[in-house]
Amino acid sequence: MAIPVALIQGASRGIGLQFCKTLLTGPKNNVVIATCRNPSSAQNLQILKDEHPKSLHIFPIDVTNESQIQQTASDISLQFKNLDLLINCAAILHPSGKGETSLRDVSSQGVLETLSINTVGPLLMAKYFSPLLLKGCGGFGKATENQQHKAVLVNMSAKVGSITDNGLGGWYSYRMAKAALNMATKNLSIELGRGKNKVICVSLHPGTVDTDLSKPYHKNVPKLFTPEYSVDCLLKVIESLEIDDSGKFFTYDRTQMQY
Amino acid sequence: MAIPVALIQGASRGIGLQFCKTLLTGPKNNVVIATCRNPSSAQNLQILKDEHPKSLHIFPIDVTNESQIQQTASDISLQFKNLDLLINCAAILHPSGKGETSLRDVSSQGVLETLSINTVGPLLMAKYFSPLLLKGCGGFGKATENQQHKAVLVNMSAKVGSITDNGLGGWYSYRMAKAALNMATKNLSIELGRGKNKVICVSLHPGTVDTDLSKPYHKNVPKLFTPEYSVDCLLKVIESLEIDDSGKFFTYDRTQMQY
Ligand SMILES: NC(=O)c1ccc[n+]([C@@H]2O[C@H](COP(=O)([O-])OP(=O)(O)OC[C@H]3O[C@@H](n4cnc5c(N)ncnc54)[C@H](OP(=O)(O)O)[C@@H]3O)[C@@H](O)[C@H]2O)c1
Ligand SMILES: NC(=O)c1ccc[n+]([C@@H]2O[C@H](COP(=O)([O-])OP(=O)(O)OC[C@H]3O[C@@H](n4cnc5c(N)ncnc54)[C@H](OP(=O)(O)O)[C@@H]3O)[C@@H](O)[C@H]2O)c1
Repeated sequence: MAIPVALIQGASRGIGLQFCKTLLTGPKNNVVIATCRNPSSAQNLQILKDEHPKSLHIFPIDVTNESQIQQTASDISLQFKNLDLLINCAAILHPSGKGETSLRDVSSQGVLETLSINTVGPLLMAKYFSPLLLKGCGGFGKATENQQHKAVLVNMSAKVGSITDNGLGGWYSYRMAKAALNMATKNLSIELGRGKNKVICVSLHPGTVDTDLSKPYHKNVPKLFTPEYSVDCLLKVIESLEIDDSGKFFTYDRTQMQY
Repeated sequence: MAIPVALIQGASRGIGLQFCKTLLTGPKNNVVIATCRNPSSAQNLQILKDEHPKSLHIFPIDVTNESQIQQTASDISLQFKNLDLLINCAAILHPSGKGETSLRDVSSQGVLETLSINTVGPLLMAKYFSPLLLKGCGGFGKATENQQHKAVLVNMSAKVGSITDNGLGGWYSYRMAKAALNMATKNLSIELGRGKNKVICVSLHPGTVDTDLSKPYHKNVPKLFTPEYSVDCLLKVIESLEIDDSGKFFTYDRTQMQY
């Protein structure tokens, strides 16, 4: 079988960086394409590149820049004929670094910037990379007798993006962005599930993970995961996915979330 | 009891205009505050003003302009001490007038403009008008022995904004915007349901209604409602609302939708 190719978008830090590390050292000999805003200043990614010069490929993508996404997708498709996994990781809580505690903190600019990175970004990635995903070799997801999917697309969502589950309020921008992202995932599962070649599309919640994003809230977290642990769990979920799971929203332990 | 005051945002045409008409001619002698982008060119609203010079008040609000919302809220609060109902009506399907049929039609600018009007707009309205709503006289919603709410806030949502119900895909911008709006409604229900003074917040689906928004799709609609009929249904739902309904998503016939 062909070597599975995974693209990790938002790979400079946190969960995205960890996906790269784990995929590069796993048993599958994956090829990893890592994208981030500033490759040259993404130190940890550059260290990883020194360790895996042949299997790690770094490209620039700021998800708020549609023409750059288009250009990089075109550059990547010159080098790679297919993609088996796309994970959209990049997100912010809010431009201030802290979620809104009440309406007082809500601003047009804050909500729109959050939506632009967390919601529109992943959708644009799907737009420009779905041609490569549709040519995937089924390197991720559950291998069945008649392999029914070509690739897997993961949008990193969050439990607080479940409208049903929302009991606390606050974090307007982040919650709204993740709810809209879950809708994007559902729409993508339909559009990329129609033809003979199918892409499984899911939203995943990683747990509360020790990264820069969650840092302001670590004190209140009873169960803070390491990125290593979260990514191990998420990759197990990804490997278990079948075409019937497409469009759904799962947590790191494969519990299905309501939207 | 005090005369109920309703603010209809997005009142120049369609369902918003019809809410003004129906509320002004109803048995309650409501005072109606209508907001729209261009009061001077909103002909139908001006005709209504000639018919109801004392009970209709028109103010300018473009929901993409946060400082204008703030200014108008401040102007209105000089004239009105309370608000009993706020209905956020303004929305677009997409800047092109047609929802995206596939990823090919998706653009950063299209999604963000739709989100700005359909999602961020209603949230900003809630931010600047919640002080007046919290001083409401409970003129709308179900009157109970111990009146438990001061006012009602309605976000006009859409059935296609239900992630659970989405079986067809397409209309990326509009669907994502309404899903995010449903999250905003849920968040608002929590924040404005905390204190002694409470505002009931709901998302409502009006049915498919004969307006400019739905015009490109009228041919395929088995049950196209007149604005009169839809608004009669919606006002019945609004009058039936209790504090326990806050945060929920209902259709014109009071069926509760999943998010
Ligand atoms: N950590 C948690 O507890 C938690 C919980 C639930 C869900 N999640 C989700 O998991 C995902 C990863 O989060 P994380 O905790 O790893 O966050 P993180 O450590 O704060 O990393 C965020 C990443 O997003 C990138 N980014 C920000 N804006 C960008 C843009 N415009 N274009 C491209 N990249 C951009 C950052 O790149 P730069 O280095 O260039 O800034 C960084 O690589 C997110 O979707 C998050 O919502 C996390
Ligand atoms: N019609 C349906 O079948 C249907 C179905 C489901 C849900 N809905 C929802 O019902 C609500 C009303 O829709 P409708 O059918 O009445 O639509 P419509 O007839 O197209 O009217 C749209 C209204 O939004 C206003 N608007 C647009 N951009 C604005 C902005 N930036 N600031 C302020 N106002 C703005 C328009 O004002 P201008 O005159 O200045 O352009 C107009 O008054 C919407 O939320 C829609 O999503 C409608």
